[in-house]
This record gives sequence, C-alpha cells and structure tokens, in this order.
Amino acid sequence: MEAGFPDYLCRCGRTHVVSADRWRCDCGGPLDLPVTAAVWPPRQETHSMWRHAGSIAGAAELPWPAISLGEGLTPLVAAGPRLRLKVEYASATGSFKDRGAVVLVALAKALGATRVVADSSGNAGTAVAAYAARAGLAAEIFVPGGTSEKKVRQIRGHGAEITLVDGSREDTAAAAAERVERAGLFYASHVHNPYFLEGTKTYALELFEQLGGTVPDTVVVPAGNGTLVLGAYRGFAALLAAGLVERLPRIVAVQAERCAPVAAAFDAGRDEVPAVPPAATLAEGIAIAAPARGGQLLRAVRESGGAVMTVSEQDIVEAHAGLAAQGFWVEPTGAVAYAAARRLEAVGSPLVEGGVVVAPLCGSGLKATPPER
Amino acid sequence: MEAGFPDYLCRCGRTHVVSADRWRCDCGGPLDLPVTAAVWPPRQETHSMWRHAGSIAGAAELPWPAISLGEGLTPLVAAGPRLRLKVEYASATGSFKDRGAVVLVALAKALGATRVVADSSGNAGTAVAAYAARAGLAAEIFVPGGTSEKKVRQIRGHGAEITLVDGSREDTAAAAAERVERAGLFYASHVHNPYFLEGTKTYALELFEQLGGTVPDTVVVPAGNGTLVLGAYRGFAALLAAGLVERLPRIVAVQAERCAPVAAAFDAGRDEVPAVPPAATLAEGIAIAAPARGGQLLRAVRESGGAVMTVSEQDIVEAHAGLAAQGFWVEPTGAVAYAAARRLEAVGSPLVEGGVVVAPLCGSGLKATPPER
Repeated sequence: MEAGFPDYLCRCGRTHVVSADRWRCDCGGPLDLPVTAAVWPPRQETHSMWRHAGSIAGAAELPWPAISLGEGLTPLVAAGPRLRLKVEYASATGSFKDRGAVVLVALAKALGATRVVADSSGNAGTAVAAYAARAGLAAEIFVPGGTSEKKVRQIRGHGAEITLVDGSREDTAAAAAERVERAGLFYASHVHNPYFLEGTKTYALELFEQLGGTVPDTVVVPAGNGTLVLGAYRGFAALLAAGLVERLPRIVAVQAERCAPVAAAFDAGRDEVPAVPPAATLAEGIAIAAPARGGQLLRAVRESGGAVMTVSEQDIVEAHAGLAAQGFWVEPTGAVAYAAARRLEAVGSPLVEGGVVVAPLCGSGLKATPPER
Repeated sequence: MEAGFPDYLCRCGRTHVVSADRWRCDCGGPLDLPVTAAVWPPRQETHSMWRHAGSIAGAAELPWPAISLGEGLTPLVAAGPRLRLKVEYASATGSFKDRGAVVLVALAKALGATRVVADSSGNAGTAVAAYAARAGLAAEIFVPGGTSEKKVRQIRGHGAEITLVDGSREDTAAAAAERVERAGLFYASHVHNPYFLEGTKTYALELFEQLGGTVPDTVVVPAGNGTLVLGAYRGFAALLAAGLVERLPRIVAVQAERCAPVAAAFDAGRDEVPAVPPAATLAEGIAIAAPARGGQLLRAVRESGGAVMTVSEQDIVEAHAGLAAQGFWVEPTGAVAYAAARRLEAVGSPLVEGGVVVAPLCGSGLKATPPER
C-alpha cells in the first residue's frame, strides 16, 4: 500500500498499489477500492463535501484544503410532497463532477504528478481543468472536435492544453488513454479512476445528513458512465457498513432512450453491458455507448432493489420546462432524473413506494443552450 | 407595523408600514429598515443563508422554506496568504443576487401580492424570475433592448413576461417604476426595497461564521447600486450591535473607472452622489450612472474606515485571467473586487493592513462571454 492509500482492487482478483501511472488492471478491467464504513458525524465547521473527509479513502493524505473550491454541500429542496431535488449545479464549476475532480487532482498532487490528462465532452473536462489550475498542475484535456467554442475558451482560460479529437466520444477517450500510456502521465479519468467515486460518494452522505439521519426510499440518478450512480452506491454502502442505516435506498439509474446500453442489458438480465452504436441525444452528458463500468452499474442497481429506465427526448424537453417553471435552470442532461422521477410517480411505480424520492439536478443550464419546446 | 415586519424608515424622518405597493418614501427617498442585533449562533442544520433567519428582519413571517433554492452558504477559499475569495457564483442562479431576491419574493408572497415587477440588465432579473417561479407568483421583468437572447430565454423559461425597453439601464428602471405605479404592483427592486439588503446581509454573517467568529480586516466589494456593500454593512453592523465584534471591517467599494459616480463623490468629499453620464464597461453589472442609495454607500464606507476606488478595463481583463488560472470562473464584473484587492496588496495600502482580506466572486463566468486578453 502507498502510504495512506488503500490498494486498487480488480474483479479478476489482482490488487495494485496506487501510483501516478496506474489507471487500469493488467487484465484491462476497471479498478476499485474497498467499501469502508462511513465515519459519523461529519465535521460541522467545514462547509463543503469535505465535512465527510473521514469517510473518503486516503483523505488524510490528500492536500485537499489547498485545492478545494468549496464543492458539494449542495442544496436539497422540495419539489412536491415526496420529491426532493439536490441542486448539484450550485457548485464551483456548475456540475456534480466537481466532487470527483477535486479528489482526483488532489490524488495526482499527493502522488507527485505534475501533469494530468482527462477526456470529456463537457463537465468533467472543465472540472479537471479548474482543479488542476487551482492545484498548480499542468492539464491536457481531450475533447471531441465539435465541442463549443465557449467551453474550449473556458478550459483554455484555466490554463489547460486542449486536444480536439476528430471522431466520437469513444475516439476521444482512446486518444487520451494513448497519450497517458505513451508518456506515463496521471490519467484524471472520471471513468477509470475509482477515487473519483470517493468524491461522488459524498452525494449520498450529504443526503443522509440533510434528511436528518435517514436515507431516501429511492434515489433516481442519471447514468452515462454512471459515476454518480456508483458514487451514491458507495456512499450508501458505507452508511450500511457503519450500521447507520439498515438498507440501501432503491437506486433507479436513468438513461436517454436514444443511447441506453445499460437499460438494454438490465432488461435482458445480463451481467455485463454490450456496447451500442453511438447516437445523439439532448442528454449529451450521458450519451455513452460503451460504459466501462457497466457491469458494476448493473450490480449496484440490482443489489439496491432498483432498476434502469429510459426517458425520451420529449420527456427531457418537458422536464426541462417543468423545472424552469419552478425556478430551476439545468442543462438538458440535468433534467433526465427529474423526468424519470415524475414518470415513476405518475404511474404509481413500486420503485417509488414509501416516503422520500431524491433526484439530482446535475449540471447548470448556464452551460447550455436551452432546448426548443 | 404590519404584523412581524418592522416599518420602513426614510432619512427625511417619515416612517411607512410595509405593504405590497410601497417602494419609496413620499419625499422620493429610498426606504430603510432599522439595524437590529444579530442572533447567534446560526442554525447549524440549515445549509443555506437561512441558517441566519433569526437575524433577518421579518423572517418569522416570510414563507421562505417553500421558496428557497438553497441560496447562500457559499464557499470561502484561500487565494494567497491573506486573501480569501467568497464564491458567490456557486448559488442557485449563479450570482449573489439570490440572497436578496429570495427575501423580496417571500415578502411579496407574505403581503399577498400575486405579481411582481423587476428591472435589471442581468443577474437580478434572472434571480427574481427564478424565485417568483418557485413561489408561484407572476413576474414581469423589464430589461434593456440589447439584452442577450440567452438571458431572455432563461427569464421566459421561468415563466416571466419580458418587456424590452429601448434606451439605457436608467430608462429601463423608469419604465418598470411607471408600470408599478400605474398598476399598484409589488416592485421587487434590488435597488429600492431594503428587504433585499436583509438578504445580502447574510454575506457578512457567513463570513463571521466561516472565519471562526471573527470578521475580516477588510472586505473589498464591487459597487454599482451597492446592494452587496450595503448588505455587508448591515450584517457587520448587526454583529456590532450584538456585541459579537468590536469594530466594523474596512469596507472598500470598487467601481469600474469608466462608470464611477460613487468614487468621484467619495474623492470630492461629498455626502451625496451626483449622476454621471452612462458609459460602457466590461463590468456591466456595476455600470450604474445614478445609484439611488449613493449617499448611504458613502456613509457606510466612511463609517467603516474604508474607501471607494476604481479599476480599469485592463485591470478587469487581467484579474479575470488571473482568477481563471487559479480555477475560478467569473463574469467580468465578478473579477472587479479581486482586481482591487490585488492592487491594494501590491502597493501595500493601509486599507488592507492587518490580517484577512475578503473579496466576493459575484457572478458566474458561465453567464458571459469571456473577455479577450
């Protein structure tokens, strides 16, 4: 074990010491970290997700106080008798990705890296660029060729180098991975590095605190690569391991109908997620045709008694408008979980039986052009 | 007194019962509220500015729990040995204006209004539209003709009616005031209604809490209409009245060199602020040629031992770039206080003698096109 950092685990049985250039198993599988018990109570005097530092793997070794932009501790507000919305866009870079990015960048710094690489079409790339700037690390961000000039200027504004990749989201990831391998760099990948999930885990820990020491009956969470689903799962599992709760909330993962490989695999009773052809959707933040942690997503959802469902483009447009009419301003992807939660309520689904249902508003509407109705 | 709401005061000596259609004194002067002692400690279990509800005038009568979007309790992060930045853009609508808008809309609701009117070129109009939507109130937002299509679509998305006014920022305000007077509507004006300042007051109360029960030596605050300067002043005065601190921090108000009526009046030793010709600046959020509370601004700054200063367009561009290089992403107006704080530090100004200096990052860079360097 690298001082203070638990070893990476792979499903194949191998373990790996945490190091700056290790980002996947020799078998090609994604790396994980052990589930540990949550430490309670959080530190009241810290007004960010770092009030839960005691529950984040390796946090004692991470130089987070110098890197934090105050991410997390987002509002939880009512939108109906049972539905609560967690306003994840009220965060430093305008999305929940801040929770994971700050941990990855702090880890890179702790391991002695001076340069990080990330790939993203949007929120994750911006978040990694911002935190790398804060930490004084060089950053290379790989983005698909069609990325908007406004986003490119923001990432460059944070001092990062942009590489525009001709091709799909998957081609962009492949180009980043190749660069990482060739130069032996730290891969600040929200998909591959499980420390990212140590950050998104705080989503669940905050819910437990904000709901007065209980967990919701159901959490509805958008899923592309599934970094918030898996983070939330890890957080709830940590509460369970600590004996603070008696069960996991049902986790309902939501995909866009047009790009729904996890939903298809769930419906087919599979254990892994076959890739689907890439397809465009308004929910571009979750348009992932080949999620690297697909099998883990399926296991998390099933263990929780939840499900994977889809929403249509029309559902997204209507949910966006419905949120705006209540004062919330999200990018289209940010309306996906709300769309799903409303539909489950409307049909009286057993997936939302009981008391409180929580959906996150993942990304700010200020990042996007609002959809036409 | 309207149940639970302290009467409005005017400097001319008149008082007025708080009502839905009262927005200025019969003498034309701006209305105020008495300074009351801060109530300490705040309510730890409330993760928003409403942890300070006990210190907000009339809060017990305000239906804020149903209207809040979780505004406030923004991060305070270090940017150097002595400078702290308060990340006001990590808020529901992306600016500090949320603090005041939620109070105004809650007041309108408490007073039985069903429709509110506001005028703004940007952040305040968006905030009032969002909170009115959340509260189920109709909203009319008056904006200058050149306002960007993206902002107009957001305000309309929140269900508000937009009136585009040909002419200056001042003409827009005059059109809104005329509509208010003609129809007897609630004027949700961040400039005229002093309850807005009860919201921005929480900026100071949060600093006191986040700095461990102390106040900064200096707060550097951008000033157009001065709603954050005056709110901060009221918050610090409330701490003083409660005996929690022994002195006010120095308040340094900052204007854009190109539109600096308050700075000119301060330098000339005046008690009131004569209007200047409107002029364009990158800091469009503070380009106010005739601030209605100019005299109050001068008094607050002087009583605190502070000053009014200006920054150039070049200062703003450089500060924006400097913030981005550290991971912060602001609209150009949001770089003004940082520009000023850095300059005061660089020249060793007595205005920043002592320990901690705080500057707010008022509005999100996602709202704007970044300036060219």
